Amino acid sequence: MTFKSDKNTILSKIDKSKKGKIDKPIKSLIKKINKNSNFYTTSSCSGRIVLLSKPSAKKQDINWLFKSHKKISFKQINSALSPLPNSPVWFRFEPLILHITAKNLKNAQYLINKSRAIGFKRSGIQSTKNKTAVEIASTEIISTIIADKGKLLISKNYLKRLIKEANKKLNTNKDKTKKFIHILQEQN
Amino acid sequence: MTFKSDKNTILSKIDKSKKGKIDKPIKSLIKKINKNSNFYTTSSCSGRIVLLSKPSAKKQDINWLFKSHKKISFKQINSALSPLPNSPVWFRFEPLILHITAKNLKNAQYLINKSRAIGFKRSGIQSTKNKTAVEIASTEIISTIIADKGKLLISKNYLKRLIKEANKKLNTNKDKTKKFIHILQEQN
Repeated sequence: MTFKSDKNTILSKIDKSKKGKIDKPIKSLIKKINKNSNFYTTSSCSGRIVLLSKPSAKKQDINWLFKSHKKISFKQINSALSPLPNSPVWFRFEPLILHITAKNLKNAQYLINKSRAIGFKRSGIQSTKNKTAVEIASTEIISTIIADKGKLLISKNYLKRLIKEANKKLNTNKDKTKKFIHILQEQN
Repeated sequence: MTFKSDKNTILSKIDKSKKGKIDKPIKSLIKKINKNSNFYTTSSCSGRIVLLSKPSAKKQDINWLFKSHKKISFKQINSALSPLPNSPVWFRFEPLILHITAKNLKNAQYLINKSRAIGFKRSGIQSTKNKTAVEIASTEIISTIIADKGKLLISKNYLKRLIKEANKKLNTNKDKTKKFIHILQEQN
């Protein structure tokens, strides 16, 4: 199959993500990428603040207590933590992540260079065989344990500070995402 | 220049990293990679626990209060935090990171596939032009603010828990690194 027919097939399929739709903050960006004849997206996350509990080390064992792609409040987090589960609970901020298929290696390289230049330092080509698949990612993560055995390990004040830091990073992430739109404009 | 002569030039140069030498826990791994005729390393970190203070958002503004590639103790961290700086202090665990140049795209793809399969999920090809450069990385990060304005934001007990979690991740990282050696054995 050609890149173009692959693209049409993929983009006409039902969204298979748990959420079933694209995160609101990056809807226009995803649309823009998919309008570009050299690229199409296969999965994406605009950046998010999450609370997850891990009954074991296995990935499939994760319970999501909370997920937000927007700024969060102490009230929201506090209510997501009541009642606390017995297993360890982690607070995480995860920045924008995009999976993009490129028409060819040259387009993929262009995307990687530009993405790294605007701060998506952990961007790379993950597949070169049947498809040229690129992952755009960065390192500005917050990730820390906050509760275990049904008890909070931190003070309410520190939880408030974590929320503040995560909201700040969500904002920086938004600014970086805006720069991403310009990359595509240059290429068109 | 050919891959082979590039490799000889790079490997004969003086180590330009701040530390000036390869991290002890991965010395034998790096040696093994460089013995393989399809690859050579350009930079590496075995995985580390760090304390850093950030007077501003700029990367060059980071002050390193503490760095360790081995398990850490409360005593070590406590003394690295005395006296506390005025700027925000972050506690971080960062897993193994390798920058490897591959002979060609096929070798690079092999490395990416195998690395992702053993848990280095954020691995990708970063350059395909003059050199085929691969970054091997993963997502098991701990990263959280612990002090600001000269004051600790967390309790000593929570700091002890963070140390425990970081030491645990350092151990998991070590096990994953061992698997990495097998990848190269398969390829030889």
